[in-house]
Amino acid sequence: MTREFVLLALKANTDGSFNLENLPSAGRIDLVCRCVSNALFISNAMRKNTIIHACLNGFPSSQSPKIVSFYGNSLRGMEWDELSIARFLQKALIAGRNLKLGEEKEVTPGLKVSKKAFETLIQEKAKKEEKKIFYLSEKGEDIRNKKFEGNEVFVVGDFVGFPKNTEKLLKRIGAEKIKVSPLTIMASHCIILVHNELDRREIL
Amino acid sequence: MTREFVLLALKANTDGSFNLENLPSAGRIDLVCRCVSNALFISNAMRKNTIIHACLNGFPSSQSPKIVSFYGNSLRGMEWDELSIARFLQKALIAGRNLKLGEEKEVTPGLKVSKKAFETLIQEKAKKEEKKIFYLSEKGEDIRNKKFEGNEVFVVGDFVGFPKNTEKLLKRIGAEKIKVSPLTIMASHCIILVHNELDRREIL
Repeated sequence: MTREFVLLALKANTDGSFNLENLPSAGRIDLVCRCVSNALFISNAMRKNTIIHACLNGFPSSQSPKIVSFYGNSLRGMEWDELSIARFLQKALIAGRNLKLGEEKEVTPGLKVSKKAFETLIQEKAKKEEKKIFYLSEKGEDIRNKKFEGNEVFVVGDFVGFPKNTEKLLKRIGAEKIKVSPLTIMASHCIILVHNELDRREIL
Repeated sequence: MTREFVLLALKANTDGSFNLENLPSAGRIDLVCRCVSNALFISNAMRKNTIIHACLNGFPSSQSPKIVSFYGNSLRGMEWDELSIARFLQKALIAGRNLKLGEEKEVTPGLKVSKKAFETLIQEKAKKEEKKIFYLSEKGEDIRNKKFEGNEVFVVGDFVGFPKNTEKLLKRIGAEKIKVSPLTIMASHCIILVHNELDRREIL
Protein backbone atom coordinates (compact mmCIF):
# COMPACT_ATOMS: atom_id res chain seq x y z
CA MET A 1 0.00 0.00 0.00
CA THR A 2 1.25 3.47 -0.81
CA ARG A 3 1.71 5.78 2.15
CA GLU A 4 1.48 9.46 1.51
CA PHE A 5 2.37 12.36 3.78
CA VAL A 6 1.77 16.06 3.24
CA LEU A 7 3.65 18.63 5.31
CA LEU A 8 2.36 22.19 5.47
CA ALA A 9 5.41 24.37 6.20
CA LEU A 10 3.98 27.87 6.33
CA LYS A 11 7.24 29.76 6.76
CA ALA A 12 9.60 27.63 4.67
CA ASN A 13 11.68 29.19 1.90
CA THR A 14 10.17 28.84 -1.58
CA ASP A 15 12.99 29.48 -4.08
CA GLY A 16 16.09 27.74 -2.72
CA SER A 17 17.80 31.02 -1.76
CA PHE A 18 18.96 29.77 1.62
CA ASN A 19 22.24 29.08 3.31
CA LEU A 20 22.85 25.37 3.84
CA GLU A 21 24.74 26.22 7.02
CA ASN A 22 21.69 27.83 8.61
CA LEU A 23 18.59 25.85 7.74
CA PRO A 24 16.47 27.07 10.71
CA SER A 25 16.68 30.67 9.47
CA ALA A 26 15.19 29.64 6.12
CA GLY A 27 11.73 29.32 7.65
CA ARG A 28 12.71 26.10 9.37
CA ILE A 29 13.95 24.14 6.36
CA ASP A 30 15.59 21.87 8.97
CA LEU A 31 12.12 20.81 10.11
CA VAL A 32 11.14 20.06 6.51
CA CYS A 33 14.29 17.93 6.09
CA ARG A 34 13.59 15.94 9.25
CA CYS A 35 10.07 15.22 8.05
CA VAL A 36 11.37 14.01 4.68
CA SER A 37 14.02 11.85 6.38
CA ASN A 38 11.55 10.29 8.79
CA ALA A 39 8.99 9.66 6.07
CA LEU A 40 11.38 7.95 3.67
CA PHE A 41 14.00 6.02 5.61
CA ILE A 42 14.26 2.92 7.70
CA SER A 43 17.61 1.43 8.70
CA ASN A 44 19.83 1.35 5.60
CA ALA A 45 16.89 1.43 3.21
CA MET A 46 14.31 3.67 1.66
CA ARG A 47 10.59 3.11 2.11
CA LYS A 48 9.70 2.52 -1.51
CA ASN A 49 5.98 2.67 -0.73
CA THR A 50 6.12 6.22 0.64
CA ILE A 51 5.66 9.68 -0.85
CA ILE A 52 6.02 12.98 0.99
CA HIS A 53 4.93 16.35 -0.32
CA ALA A 54 6.54 19.36 1.37
CA CYS A 55 4.25 22.38 0.87
CA LEU A 56 6.34 25.51 1.32
CA ASN A 57 4.51 28.79 1.84
CA GLY A 58 7.19 31.14 3.15
CA PHE A 59 9.47 33.71 1.62
CA PRO A 60 9.93 35.01 -0.99
CA SER A 61 6.16 35.35 -1.26
CA SER A 62 6.41 36.00 -5.02
CA GLN A 63 7.58 32.36 -5.38
CA SER A 64 5.02 30.96 -2.95
CA PRO A 65 3.34 28.47 -2.90
CA LYS A 66 5.65 25.62 -3.86
CA ILE A 67 5.39 21.89 -3.36
CA VAL A 68 8.45 19.64 -3.43
CA SER A 69 7.52 15.97 -3.65
CA PHE A 70 9.82 13.06 -2.79
CA TYR A 71 8.94 9.58 -4.12
CA GLY A 72 10.54 6.70 -2.22
CA ASN A 73 10.18 4.30 -5.13
CA SER A 74 12.41 6.23 -7.51
CA LEU A 75 14.54 8.70 -5.54
CA ARG A 76 18.28 8.07 -5.83
CA GLY A 77 21.38 9.31 -4.00
CA MET A 78 19.70 11.12 -1.12
CA GLU A 79 21.04 10.38 2.36
CA TRP A 80 19.30 10.53 5.74
CA ASP A 81 20.93 13.63 7.15
CA GLU A 82 19.41 17.11 7.10
CA LEU A 83 22.09 18.62 4.90
CA SER A 84 21.80 15.95 2.21
CA ILE A 85 18.04 16.43 2.07
CA ALA A 86 18.39 20.22 2.14
CA ARG A 87 20.58 19.99 -0.99
CA PHE A 88 17.84 18.05 -2.82
CA LEU A 89 15.23 20.53 -1.64
CA GLN A 90 17.35 23.48 -2.73
CA LYS A 91 17.98 21.92 -6.14
CA ALA A 92 14.24 21.38 -6.63
CA LEU A 93 13.35 24.92 -5.55
CA ILE A 94 15.95 26.47 -7.86
CA ALA A 95 14.63 24.33 -10.73
CA GLY A 96 11.13 25.54 -9.92
CA ARG A 97 11.81 29.27 -10.04
CA ASN A 98 10.22 29.77 -13.47
CA LEU A 99 7.14 27.64 -12.95
CA LYS A 100 3.73 29.19 -13.45
CA LEU A 101 0.84 28.42 -11.14
CA GLY A 102 -0.27 24.83 -11.67
CA GLU A 103 2.92 23.73 -13.47
CA GLU A 104 5.05 20.81 -12.29
CA LYS A 105 8.60 19.71 -13.14
CA GLU A 106 10.53 16.50 -12.50
CA VAL A 107 13.96 17.58 -11.27
CA THR A 108 15.64 14.19 -10.91
CA PRO A 109 14.02 10.74 -10.64
CA GLY A 110 11.66 10.77 -7.67
CA LEU A 111 11.97 14.51 -7.05
CA LYS A 112 9.32 16.89 -8.36
CA VAL A 113 8.59 20.57 -7.80
CA SER A 114 5.34 22.34 -8.55
CA LYS A 115 3.91 25.80 -8.07
CA LYS A 116 0.77 24.74 -6.34
CA ALA A 117 -1.02 25.48 -3.08
CA PHE A 118 -1.41 23.00 -0.24
CA GLU A 119 -5.18 23.48 -0.52
CA THR A 120 -5.18 22.51 -4.21
CA LEU A 121 -3.09 19.40 -3.55
CA ILE A 122 -5.34 18.26 -0.72
CA GLN A 123 -8.48 18.74 -2.80
CA GLU A 124 -6.94 16.76 -5.67
CA LYS A 125 -6.05 13.93 -3.29
CA ALA A 126 -9.54 13.86 -1.77
CA LYS A 127 -11.58 14.32 -4.94
CA LYS A 128 -9.64 13.12 -8.00
CA GLU A 129 -7.68 10.38 -6.28
CA GLU A 130 -10.38 9.54 -3.73
CA LYS A 131 -7.91 9.36 -0.88
CA LYS A 132 -8.96 9.48 2.74
CA ILE A 133 -7.35 12.47 4.42
CA PHE A 134 -6.23 12.43 8.05
CA TYR A 135 -4.60 15.36 9.76
CA LEU A 136 -2.60 15.32 12.94
CA SER A 137 -4.08 17.29 15.82
CA GLU A 138 -3.92 17.17 19.61
CA LYS A 139 -7.72 17.07 19.55
CA GLY A 140 -7.93 14.09 17.22
CA GLU A 141 -8.88 10.50 17.88
CA ASP A 142 -6.07 8.17 18.94
CA ILE A 143 -4.45 6.57 15.88
CA ARG A 144 -4.38 3.24 17.71
CA ASN A 145 -8.19 3.15 17.57
CA LYS A 146 -8.54 4.06 13.90
CA LYS A 147 -9.09 1.76 10.96
CA PHE A 148 -7.08 2.28 7.81
CA GLU A 149 -7.76 0.88 4.37
CA GLY A 150 -4.53 1.66 2.55
CA ASN A 151 -5.69 4.79 0.70
CA GLU A 152 -4.74 7.33 3.36
CA VAL A 153 -2.98 10.66 3.13
CA PHE A 154 -1.60 12.00 6.41
CA VAL A 155 -1.29 15.76 6.78
CA VAL A 156 1.01 17.36 9.33
CA GLY A 157 1.52 21.02 10.13
CA ASP A 158 4.77 22.70 11.12
CA PHE A 159 5.38 24.68 14.32
CA VAL A 160 2.79 27.26 13.21
CA GLY A 161 0.00 24.69 12.85
CA PHE A 162 -2.99 24.93 10.53
CA PRO A 163 -4.57 28.33 9.84
CA LYS A 164 -8.33 28.47 10.56
CA ASN A 165 -9.30 28.57 6.88
CA THR A 166 -7.10 25.59 6.12
CA GLU A 167 -8.68 23.61 8.91
CA LYS A 168 -12.13 24.57 7.59
CA LEU A 169 -11.14 23.24 4.16
CA LEU A 170 -9.86 20.01 5.73
CA LYS A 171 -13.18 19.54 7.49
CA ARG A 172 -15.15 20.36 4.33
CA ILE A 173 -13.43 17.62 2.34
CA GLY A 174 -14.11 15.09 5.09
CA ALA A 175 -10.62 14.94 6.60
CA GLU A 176 -10.46 13.38 10.04
CA LYS A 177 -8.33 14.51 12.99
CA ILE A 178 -6.05 11.93 14.56
CA LYS A 179 -3.53 12.17 17.33
CA VAL A 180 -0.47 10.07 17.94
CA SER A 181 0.68 11.39 21.32
CA PRO A 182 -0.81 12.93 24.45
CA LEU A 183 1.84 15.68 24.14
CA THR A 184 2.31 18.32 21.47
CA ILE A 185 5.20 16.83 19.55
CA MET A 186 7.09 17.79 16.42
CA ALA A 187 5.75 17.14 12.93
CA SER A 188 8.72 14.89 12.14
CA HIS A 189 7.99 12.78 15.22
CA CYS A 190 4.34 12.40 14.21
CA ILE A 191 5.47 10.87 10.92
CA ILE A 192 7.49 8.17 12.73
CA LEU A 193 4.48 7.32 14.90
CA VAL A 194 2.10 7.08 11.94
CA HIS A 195 4.54 4.81 10.09
CA ASN A 196 4.96 2.64 13.17
CA GLU A 197 1.23 2.11 13.59
CA LEU A 198 0.87 1.13 9.92
CA ASP A 199 4.00 -1.06 10.02
CA ARG A 200 2.59 -2.95 12.99
CA ARG A 201 -0.71 -3.60 11.24
CA GLU A 202 0.82 -4.69 7.95
CA ILE A 203 3.60 -6.86 9.29
CA LEU A 204 3.13 -7.93 12.90
CA MET B 1 10.19 10.05 36.31
CA THR B 2 13.60 10.45 34.72
CA ARG B 3 14.02 8.89 31.31
CA GLU B 4 17.48 7.89 30.30
CA PHE B 5 18.79 6.82 26.91
CA VAL B 6 22.21 5.46 26.01
CA LEU B 7 23.36 5.41 22.39
CA LEU B 8 26.27 3.21 21.39
CA ALA B 9 27.83 4.84 18.32
CA LEU B 10 30.71 2.55 17.46
CA LYS B 11 32.16 4.59 14.60
CA ALA B 12 31.50 8.12 15.82
CA ASN B 13 34.33 10.65 16.07
CA THR B 14 35.82 10.99 19.56
CA ASP B 15 37.74 14.29 19.64
CA GLY B 16 35.62 16.85 17.78
CA SER B 17 37.94 16.92 14.76
CA PHE B 18 35.14 16.81 12.23
CA ASN B 19 33.74 19.07 9.56
CA LEU B 20 30.32 20.43 10.47
CA GLU B 21 29.43 20.40 6.78
CA ASN B 22 29.90 16.66 6.50
CA LEU B 23 28.60 14.97 9.64
CA PRO B 24 28.03 11.52 8.05
CA SER B 25 31.74 11.19 7.27
CA ALA B 26 32.60 11.68 10.97
CA GLY B 27 31.45 8.16 11.80
CA ARG B 28 27.82 9.20 11.41
CA ILE B 29 27.76 12.12 13.82
CA ASP B 30 24.49 13.05 12.03
CA LEU B 31 22.92 9.91 13.48
CA VAL B 32 24.12 10.85 16.96
CA CYS B 33 22.62 14.34 16.55
CA ARG B 34 19.25 12.97 15.47
CA CYS B 35 19.18 10.69 18.50
CA VAL B 36 19.94 13.61 20.81
CA SER B 37 17.28 15.76 19.13
CA ASN B 38 14.62 13.07 19.33
CA ALA B 39 15.45 12.25 22.94
CA LEU B 40 15.30 15.83 24.18
CA PHE B 41 12.72 17.78 22.23
CA ILE B 42 8.98 18.00 21.93
CA SER B 43 7.29 20.85 20.08
CA ASN B 44 8.89 24.11 21.22
CA ALA B 45 10.13 22.62 24.48
CA MET B 46 12.79 20.43 25.99
CA ARG B 47 11.98 17.25 27.86
CA LYS B 48 13.36 18.22 31.25
CA ASN B 49 12.98 14.68 32.54
CA THR B 50 15.29 13.17 29.91
CA ILE B 51 19.01 12.41 29.74
CA ILE B 52 20.86 10.96 26.77
CA HIS B 53 24.40 9.62 26.84
CA ALA B 54 26.12 9.37 23.44
CA CYS B 55 28.88 6.75 23.69
CA LEU B 56 31.37 7.42 20.91
CA ASN B 57 33.83 4.68 20.07
CA GLY B 58 35.22 5.70 16.69
CA PHE B 59 38.28 7.56 15.47
CA PRO B 60 40.76 8.72 16.57
CA SER B 61 41.09 5.53 18.59
CA SER B 62 43.62 7.20 20.94
CA GLN B 63 40.74 9.40 22.17
CA SER B 64 38.21 6.56 22.34
CA PRO B 65 36.01 5.85 24.28
CA LYS B 66 34.15 9.07 24.99
CA ILE B 67 30.71 9.71 26.40
CA VAL B 68 28.91 13.01 25.82
CA SER B 69 25.88 13.38 28.08
CA PHE B 70 22.99 15.81 27.51
CA TYR B 71 20.72 16.66 30.46
CA GLY B 72 17.30 18.03 29.48
CA ASN B 73 16.76 19.69 32.85
CA SER B 74 19.71 22.07 32.59
CA LEU B 75 20.84 22.31 28.95
CA ARG B 76 20.54 25.82 27.47
CA GLY B 77 20.70 27.27 23.96
CA MET B 78 20.71 24.08 21.95
CA GLU B 79 18.29 23.93 19.03
CA TRP B 80 16.59 20.92 17.41
CA ASP B 81 18.56 20.81 14.17
CA GLU B 82 21.51 18.50 13.48
CA LEU B 83 24.01 21.32 13.03
CA SER B 84 23.14 23.01 16.32
CA ILE B 85 23.52 19.73 18.18
CA ALA B 86 26.72 18.88 16.30
CA ARG B 87 28.22 22.17 17.54
CA PHE B 88 27.47 21.22 21.16
CA LEU B 89 28.88 17.76 20.59
CA GLN B 90 32.02 19.16 18.99
CA LYS B 91 32.50 21.64 21.83
CA ALA B 92 32.21 18.84 24.39
CA LEU B 93 34.63 16.58 22.51
CA ILE B 94 37.22 19.32 22.16
CA ALA B 95 36.87 20.08 25.90
CA GLY B 96 37.39 16.39 26.62
CA ARG B 97 40.65 15.93 24.73
CA ASN B 98 42.81 15.93 27.86
CA LEU B 99 40.66 13.69 30.01
CA LYS B 100 42.17 10.56 31.50
CA LEU B 101 40.22 7.32 31.65
CA GLY B 102 37.41 7.67 34.18
CA GLU B 103 37.50 11.48 34.29
CA GLU B 104 34.45 13.65 33.59
CA LYS B 105 34.04 17.34 32.84
CA GLU B 106 31.01 19.65 32.75
CA VAL B 107 31.37 21.71 29.58
CA THR B 108 28.34 23.97 29.91
CA PRO B 109 25.24 23.47 32.06
CA GLY B 110 23.64 20.18 31.12
CA LEU B 111 26.50 19.07 28.87
CA LYS B 112 29.16 16.70 30.17
CA VAL B 113 31.99 14.77 28.56
CA SER B 114 33.79 11.80 30.02
CA LYS B 115 36.46 9.36 28.94
CA LYS B 116 34.59 6.24 29.76
CA ALA B 117 33.47 3.08 27.98
CA PHE B 118 29.86 2.23 27.20
CA GLU B 119 30.32 -0.99 29.16
CA THR B 120 31.43 0.89 32.29
CA LEU B 121 28.49 3.30 32.07
CA ILE B 122 25.98 0.48 31.68
CA GLN B 123 27.41 -1.43 34.63
CA GLU B 124 27.25 1.70 36.78
CA LYS B 125 23.62 2.25 35.82
CA ALA B 126 22.67 -1.36 36.57
CA LYS B 127 24.68 -1.87 39.75
CA LYS B 128 25.32 1.46 41.49
CA GLU B 129 22.12 3.21 40.42
CA GLU B 130 20.00 0.02 40.32
CA LYS B 131 18.41 0.96 37.03
CA LYS B 132 16.60 -1.54 34.86
CA ILE B 133 18.31 -1.77 31.48
CA PHE B 134 16.39 -2.39 28.25
CA TYR B 135 18.04 -2.61 24.87
CA LEU B 136 16.40 -2.27 21.51
CA SER B 137 16.55 -5.34 19.32
CA GLU B 138 14.46 -6.82 16.51
CA LYS B 139 14.32 -10.00 18.58
CA GLY B 140 12.96 -8.30 21.70
CA GLU B 141 9.54 -8.37 23.26
CA ASP B 142 7.07 -5.75 22.04
CA ILE B 143 7.36 -2.58 24.13
CA ARG B 144 3.56 -2.33 24.19
CA ASN B 145 3.46 -5.48 26.33
CA LYS B 146 6.16 -4.46 28.81
CA LYS B 147 5.71 -2.99 32.25
CA PHE B 148 7.88 -0.06 33.29
CA GLU B 149 8.46 1.27 36.77
CA GLY B 150 10.15 4.58 36.10
CA ASN B 151 13.76 3.50 36.68
CA GLU B 152 14.55 2.40 33.13
CA VAL B 153 17.55 3.04 30.93
CA PHE B 154 17.00 2.41 27.22
CA VAL B 155 20.02 1.42 25.14
CA VAL B 156 20.10 1.80 21.38
CA GLY B 157 22.81 0.80 18.93
CA ASP B 158 23.81 2.67 15.78
CA PHE B 159 23.83 1.22 12.26
CA VAL B 160 26.54 -1.29 13.29
CA GLY B 161 24.47 -2.74 16.14
CA PHE B 162 25.83 -4.36 19.29
CA PRO B 163 29.06 -6.39 19.15
CA LYS B 164 28.70 -9.93 20.53
CA ASN B 165 30.69 -9.21 23.68
CA THR B 166 28.60 -6.13 24.40
CA GLU B 167 25.41 -8.11 24.04
CA LYS B 168 26.84 -10.75 26.39
CA LEU B 169 27.52 -8.04 28.96
CA LEU B 170 24.00 -6.68 28.56
CA LYS B 171 22.59 -10.13 29.21
CA ARG B 172 24.89 -10.68 32.19
CA ILE B 173 23.63 -7.56 33.95
CA GLY B 174 20.01 -8.59 33.40
CA ALA B 175 19.20 -6.23 30.53
CA GLU B 176 16.07 -7.14 28.59
CA LYS B 177 15.54 -6.94 24.85
CA ILE B 178 12.57 -4.93 23.62
CA LYS B 179 11.39 -4.05 20.15
CA VAL B 180 9.35 -1.09 19.01
CA SER B 181 8.74 -1.96 15.36
CA PRO B 182 8.39 -5.04 13.17
CA LEU B 183 10.96 -3.46 10.83
CA THR B 184 14.62 -2.65 11.38
CA ILE B 185 14.41 1.07 11.93
CA MET B 186 16.92 3.76 12.82
CA ALA B 187 18.16 4.33 16.35
CA SER B 188 16.74 7.84 16.35
CA HIS B 189 13.30 6.52 15.40
CA CYS B 190 13.43 3.95 18.21
CA ILE B 191 13.85 6.79 20.71
CA ILE B 192 10.66 8.51 19.49
CA LEU B 193 8.74 5.25 19.84
CA VAL B 194 10.02 4.58 23.37
CA HIS B 195 9.11 8.12 24.43
CA ASN B 196 5.66 7.77 22.90
CA GLU B 197 4.90 4.56 24.77
CA LEU B 198 5.98 6.13 28.07
CA ASP B 199 4.12 9.40 27.32
CA ARG B 200 0.93 7.45 26.71
CA ARG B 201 1.21 5.58 30.00
CA GLU B 202 2.06 8.63 32.09
CA ILE B 203 -0.42 11.07 30.59
CA LEU B 204 -3.24 9.41 28.67
